[in-house]
Amino acid sequence: MNGLFVTFEGPDGSGKSTQIEKLAGYLEKKKLPYLWTHEPGGTAISNKIRTLLLDPDHQEMESETEILLYAASRAQHVREKIMPALEQGKIVLCDRFADASIAYQGYGLGQNVEKVREINHFATGGLVPDRSYFLDLSPEAGRQRMLNRSELDRIEQKQLAYHERVRRAFRLLYEENRKRICLLNGEEEKETLFSKIQSDFTQLWIRHQKESEV
Amino acid sequence: MNGLFVTFEGPDGSGKSTQIEKLAGYLEKKKLPYLWTHEPGGTAISNKIRTLLLDPDHQEMESETEILLYAASRAQHVREKIMPALEQGKIVLCDRFADASIAYQGYGLGQNVEKVREINHFATGGLVPDRSYFLDLSPEAGRQRMLNRSELDRIEQKQLAYHERVRRAFRLLYEENRKRICLLNGEEEKETLFSKIQSDFTQLWIRHQKESEV
Repeated sequence: MNGLFVTFEGPDGSGKSTQIEKLAGYLEKKKLPYLWTHEPGGTAISNKIRTLLLDPDHQEMESETEILLYAASRAQHVREKIMPALEQGKIVLCDRFADASIAYQGYGLGQNVEKVREINHFATGGLVPDRSYFLDLSPEAGRQRMLNRSELDRIEQKQLAYHERVRRAFRLLYEENRKRICLLNGEEEKETLFSKIQSDFTQLWIRHQKESEV
Repeated sequence: MNGLFVTFEGPDGSGKSTQIEKLAGYLEKKKLPYLWTHEPGGTAISNKIRTLLLDPDHQEMESETEILLYAASRAQHVREKIMPALEQGKIVLCDRFADASIAYQGYGLGQNVEKVREINHFATGGLVPDRSYFLDLSPEAGRQRMLNRSELDRIEQKQLAYHERVRRAFRLLYEENRKRICLLNGEEEKETLFSKIQSDFTQLWIRHQKESEV
């Protein structure tokens, strides 16, 4: 595989979409082939699973069901879309990936984190991002930004304590994977954030090009 | 838990529904509280997952996605419907359960059977049936019976070789779980089959009553 797999993580309202859009624009300008995708979703089947997951009517959904549905959506996304793009040498920009399941379903829902990891390993077939940008933001700030936008979905409606556990989980994941994960302060200005991402990505890309030549 | 968990397995066309109906009628007559349910499905969320799984348009569905979707449907069904009924002391009659996933998704799709078992253990929370009736039938006979009925769904459309692997898997499961599984010849007359099931079930019920009294 010659492509590069880049993921973006962080709570709703943390500015993930803005940063991905900026990076995609940059790749466009540089004429580098890329794919912009997102989870849950990304394929026809995965999008139907997404609809099921986020429906505010599904309050009775059990944690185990949620974990398995996210994993099912990811399994399809990886094999139908992400892997083929990487094999074609593309840069894949993915809005949320397996780290989100460890944080939201594992730590957030208070489930067995090791089990969530195992199920996700099965779902991804062992695919790990080359770089993950984590946009850190307090749950209060995230919620405030979301309330200004639209109605909250089933996950967004959960209590602040849940989102606080998720935030701590993302930081823990960062401590465990400092080579892969780049932790950023979501309260910073969009332009400041993007210049950091752009600079980090450029170094990553140069290194990747050199390694591919060898 | 004071209830009794009874599952029925076998290919489409093997006569599972007929036998469950007969057993349900028998329990009705005996005034024993029971719940008749089925997989995939059994709850509102599980039924939506079922629709996704069986849609003939979803030919691109990956094996891993299928395994995880069946497990998700089961996780919801177990916690929302089966466990509460067992806790109320009911006899739960379930048309297909975890054995079907081991046979169809594990052996049938040629996936890692141990992984399928682990994922299903997570989905069921370790719940195992008290008795499972396996209706054995050759794929040719099963298909012939189904063709006389209606259009085939996505799973039914698969090749006979697939259904042959599934049949062998069910027999293997029987060899591994002879105390729990009762293997029956689906080619036998409905009435003959039911008298065997009824006789076995009655003994099981008497034993269960005695154990509950202790």
